[in-house]
Amino acid sequence: MNTHQSIAFLGMGLMGVPMARNLLKAGFTVACYNRTASKTAPVVESGGTACLSPKEAARNADVVISCVTNGPDVENVLFGDEGAIHGAKADTIFVDMSTIAPAVSVEIGARVKAKGFRFVEAPVTGGTVGAQNGTLSILAGGSEEDFLELQPVFAAMGKNVTRCGPWGAGQGVKLCNQIMGAMNILGVCEAFSLARGMKIDLALIEKALNGGAASSWALQNLARKIAAGDWSPGFMVDTQQKDMKLVLEAAEQVQAVLPGSALVTQLWRSAQANGDGSDGIHALDKVLQRLSNPK
Amino acid sequence: MNTHQSIAFLGMGLMGVPMARNLLKAGFTVACYNRTASKTAPVVESGGTACLSPKEAARNADVVISCVTNGPDVENVLFGDEGAIHGAKADTIFVDMSTIAPAVSVEIGARVKAKGFRFVEAPVTGGTVGAQNGTLSILAGGSEEDFLELQPVFAAMGKNVTRCGPWGAGQGVKLCNQIMGAMNILGVCEAFSLARGMKIDLALIEKALNGGAASSWALQNLARKIAAGDWSPGFMVDTQQKDMKLVLEAAEQVQAVLPGSALVTQLWRSAQANGDGSDGIHALDKVLQRLSNPK
Repeated sequence: MNTHQSIAFLGMGLMGVPMARNLLKAGFTVACYNRTASKTAPVVESGGTACLSPKEAARNADVVISCVTNGPDVENVLFGDEGAIHGAKADTIFVDMSTIAPAVSVEIGARVKAKGFRFVEAPVTGGTVGAQNGTLSILAGGSEEDFLELQPVFAAMGKNVTRCGPWGAGQGVKLCNQIMGAMNILGVCEAFSLARGMKIDLALIEKALNGGAASSWALQNLARKIAAGDWSPGFMVDTQQKDMKLVLEAAEQVQAVLPGSALVTQLWRSAQANGDGSDGIHALDKVLQRLSNPK
Repeated sequence: MNTHQSIAFLGMGLMGVPMARNLLKAGFTVACYNRTASKTAPVVESGGTACLSPKEAARNADVVISCVTNGPDVENVLFGDEGAIHGAKADTIFVDMSTIAPAVSVEIGARVKAKGFRFVEAPVTGGTVGAQNGTLSILAGGSEEDFLELQPVFAAMGKNVTRCGPWGAGQGVKLCNQIMGAMNILGVCEAFSLARGMKIDLALIEKALNGGAASSWALQNLARKIAAGDWSPGFMVDTQQKDMKLVLEAAEQVQAVLPGSALVTQLWRSAQANGDGSDGIHALDKVLQRLSNPK
């Protein structure tokens, strides 16, 4: 089994920067690339090198990691004119850590394989805090062999690392995560809507109910923000909606009926329509407030 | 402040029996009553006495606890011809631990007060397991003074004891609990619906996602039952639906709009229509399976 030492990291966003820094901390060399070149600065300060194209970043890489916004972005950094696939050496393994459509991830895997390389998808959960602390959950899809070979790389960035199945399965489990997170926060906001109507002190609901059958990450982390009227995002409505679109498309492809997911997507659309797209996902509460009697 | 020693316990159901036994264990005397008299046997075996009417049970009680199915049942055991109110001594405090409509609880409180007694509502969460282990969450509504006086009684039955506000507020917070529990299990079932369609191993979803933003009591406790096709109830669909009716009625009274709660109630109605009313609430999964492509 190879020990991977040299990593190309494509995409220096809110997630990519701390993930790349954790790789450096773990002893990997990191060559990074970002469309807006200035965003590579924090990684360069931490000991990485900045490259002008994905192709250049990939030149000596054992592992090429992409962590970008959507499917077309992944295709562009891998297969575009200056794409990483054109610079990679034999035996390079491509790891896409973006959240994209499962079907698109399968297609990308097949294109990477057709060029003679290996591919593993590995979307993550845990947000920017998890990325900074190296405590991401990593949801891998790909062959067992490739997954095992990537263990040291994943261990530098995450804590709970799971092989979910072949290509597509990791993205699928990521969408399961988004579905549950969505319904959990809707539950908190509907509870608050009733409580507000009944003049119940919102601040005591978390204390009274946490630990019981109503418990959720949303109750433990977002209820107090709603009670305080703090709409700052841990995770933005606009980003959640990008993921809900992937959820509903994937569900359509396999003919799975998701009435709650469809509903909460419409409610978040109302948040977006009211200019709250860059608030946190708990801005659902504002949607319900607008729908309900303000008395 | 009195120390309450003598308790009348009205309603020997799945919750009442273990709650009464925990009171005995804590040193209280317990006189119990149940419509079907045979159900008092386990409490009598544990040292309680059985009475033929609520009135008789209340005769020497410092505290009269009711824990029955619905509002009319509470009214009957308190105010009926043989109701506890007719047997109670001065200074008795009435505690209703049933889950009933907040508005009905307020009415009952007023009727108890009109008869010269005190009233505290105290619905619980935590199910039969919590009742047995004395780890219920108790959601009280009533005066601060009465609440404080009842601390030893509550401590014998529960762990997280909260005064939620005046009459109605405890029942309101209980309904908040039911709303969140409902949306959390819907999220798990929709995630499983997508995963099943995508041929993802259902058993790994809990392991991969627990601890993250998708976490909930439902994911931690019910996902494995769904994956195993085990529909045995922790909490029955029929009982949940009784509570969802209270949720939607209370919401209507305060003009709170709860689209997710309305939706999940309809889905559980489908479970009931298909003969699954006595399954656990996670039988929502079967509803989604029937709606979705079984491939």
